[in-house]
Amino acid sequence: MPTIDRAACEAMDRDDPLAPARVRFHLPDGVIYLDGNSLGALPRATPERLARLVTREWGDDLITGWNKHGWVELPRRLGAKIAPLVGAQADEVLVCDSTSLNVFKLLSAALSANPQRRLILSDSGNFPTDLYMAQGLAALLGRDHRLELVPPEGVMERLAEDVAVVMLTEVDYRTGRRHDMAAINERARSHGVLTLWDLAHSAGAMPVELDRTGADFAVGCGYKYLNGGPGAPAFLFVARHWQDRAQQPLFGWFGHARPFDFDTSYAPRDGIDRFQVGTPPVISMAALECGLDTFAGIDLQQVRAKSLALGDLMIRLVEQQCAGFGLSLASPPAGAARGSQVSYAHGHGYAVMQALIARGVIGDFRAPDLLRFGFTPLYLRFADIWDAVAVLRTVLMQEEWRRPEFHQRAAVT
Amino acid sequence: MPTIDRAACEAMDRDDPLAPARVRFHLPDGVIYLDGNSLGALPRATPERLARLVTREWGDDLITGWNKHGWVELPRRLGAKIAPLVGAQADEVLVCDSTSLNVFKLLSAALSANPQRRLILSDSGNFPTDLYMAQGLAALLGRDHRLELVPPEGVMERLAEDVAVVMLTEVDYRTGRRHDMAAINERARSHGVLTLWDLAHSAGAMPVELDRTGADFAVGCGYKYLNGGPGAPAFLFVARHWQDRAQQPLFGWFGHARPFDFDTSYAPRDGIDRFQVGTPPVISMAALECGLDTFAGIDLQQVRAKSLALGDLMIRLVEQQCAGFGLSLASPPAGAARGSQVSYAHGHGYAVMQALIARGVIGDFRAPDLLRFGFTPLYLRFADIWDAVAVLRTVLMQEEWRRPEFHQRAAVT
Repeated sequence: MPTIDRAACEAMDRDDPLAPARVRFHLPDGVIYLDGNSLGALPRATPERLARLVTREWGDDLITGWNKHGWVELPRRLGAKIAPLVGAQADEVLVCDSTSLNVFKLLSAALSANPQRRLILSDSGNFPTDLYMAQGLAALLGRDHRLELVPPEGVMERLAEDVAVVMLTEVDYRTGRRHDMAAINERARSHGVLTLWDLAHSAGAMPVELDRTGADFAVGCGYKYLNGGPGAPAFLFVARHWQDRAQQPLFGWFGHARPFDFDTSYAPRDGIDRFQVGTPPVISMAALECGLDTFAGIDLQQVRAKSLALGDLMIRLVEQQCAGFGLSLASPPAGAARGSQVSYAHGHGYAVMQALIARGVIGDFRAPDLLRFGFTPLYLRFADIWDAVAVLRTVLMQEEWRRPEFHQRAAVT
Repeated sequence: MPTIDRAACEAMDRDDPLAPARVRFHLPDGVIYLDGNSLGALPRATPERLARLVTREWGDDLITGWNKHGWVELPRRLGAKIAPLVGAQADEVLVCDSTSLNVFKLLSAALSANPQRRLILSDSGNFPTDLYMAQGLAALLGRDHRLELVPPEGVMERLAEDVAVVMLTEVDYRTGRRHDMAAINERARSHGVLTLWDLAHSAGAMPVELDRTGADFAVGCGYKYLNGGPGAPAFLFVARHWQDRAQQPLFGWFGHARPFDFDTSYAPRDGIDRFQVGTPPVISMAALECGLDTFAGIDLQQVRAKSLALGDLMIRLVEQQCAGFGLSLASPPAGAARGSQVSYAHGHGYAVMQALIARGVIGDFRAPDLLRFGFTPLYLRFADIWDAVAVLRTVLMQEEWRRPEFHQRAAVT
């Protein structure tokens, strides 16, 4: 294979149909940001939108803002903007609460919709908070409900008549390994197993086809590829045919059929709205809407193609520039089996990542030993990958990561 | 009683020790805002704080903001700022999620801490979402758990050995009637009943003494008297001795003892932090912190005294100016039995309120017939009450509220 130089990467940028989207974001000078899968970058529109929301809509219009500015519609309006990103109908997606809480709601709903079964199946690669929520629900129910974990490659085989719901994150947060959603949905359906997908590392990074593949339930994150800001509200998906049949137990007033009648008894709203709970967080929602609007006019097939091209480039450049430094590819080499990230194991992964960050290449570390590099096709350039690998080579060659300050663990990386 | 004129109200404003706090808020011209008990006004500091958070902390520092700017500490830092407002220790209060969700967590915790009992007691004046959450929890548990409602005046008598937890809103959202928290806590304790207080209409409007009166659990709202903005995060209180003994079922990664170890099994953090669930909503939290900072240096005894004086003034002025127009006082006349609002029943309450709002006097309407006027001592003036009652008199005299446009119901009032 011929050596790739920076000029070749620049040529890829010139040919990139998504290159114009980069100006939709604020990207600090001197930083190559490979962590949009942890916290997306700031859309340029967000500061002005929040200023207007806060000073005009809240400050001047006060309580009347709920109607005058459509705050009450935000959960549905934002859901409708997410729907095309995940292959759903506008009335199947709602923005609300956190991913964790939405897992709780939808796991409960799935169990209510499959009442003869008690078992929640997941895999050991799932993001821990999803597993914790399942454990908390099972403990609360206390009627033989339990969570069973299998290795990711064992999921298909374990789908059987005793499983009520299989809960999986499509793209593994550590390695980027991608489940075959269509195949799992099909097999699950044939065994009467409901499906709950966590799209935290999918939505906005690649096309998702919830409806076409027959997914039952899904959740996703607002602050990664959707660029909603730190701790942005999450979303949930409920296939139409379950909306009025599956019960979620968090009966809040925003899920009530007539919240402003102030009845003392709960009566659920029709459709997806019964999955709302409390008052929507308007300020955070407005920020998330700016993130969603960065996808205006974007072709998700192009997003996926660029995402894989960025990953393939990284893998090739690391082979070319960093061989012999103890890096071991932890992600599937084949694009079809991979999400929008590439991870490497390294014996001093934490310290290496700290050294990279100190030099402006921001990825992140995931225990026990993974360097994780995420690719956000809307704002990353191919030349950024070249530059990032050059810095990685420098860090590894100079053994900069052996300096003691790079071994101090921070609370969140 | 001598007639009160505007000059007398202006004199009260000159003597008001809280008058200087008004400049901490943005208050639109031409508006008298008597709805801070639904959505608090905008603190002047909020727009600049949000701009800095978004552009500098998120935009420039990206993922490193979690540590560099202490985002991860926000739930505890804001909880510590609320603690003195509700008579709690700094490590007993946490800001997180919505009031509804916090009710679910703490009701579950209370039931886990009182495992021989099944009954949740509340009153018919409680805010509906609290009741709905209890109904949802009882339905989910499905083991003879149930919610029983009694009239507010019947709560004391109903506290008995079969009740697991009594859940009450201290101040009734419609009438402003105030429960005697100390007396209820004492009687509950003597019967082995745990207490869960909703402080939505108390926190920030009057001193609350959770610890001194022996409350077990409490929740409260961030967007009313705490001025956190529309849909601001809520708070919860767990008395120290329950923190490690009561179990809440929403096992999220922010409640895990070592979230960045990414274990597949849940292990709760020590203390109040186990009541966290998902990733904190940083932008909304930053706005709420500005709301909490409006209480810096404020004496809550002065807040309570002014709140009652504003209510007493309203009651006297309505008697003086609006007699014979069909208004009937729905709030306790005696200040000690009242929160920070005054409500009137009127046969055309909805239309009268719409006519008031059209003239710049913003209160709100609560079904079936209540005009609700809330008093926020930090930014309301006694002269505002005089002016509001003058407008109320004009509306009632001119029968302006009979115009058809004031009878159109909006979704949120």
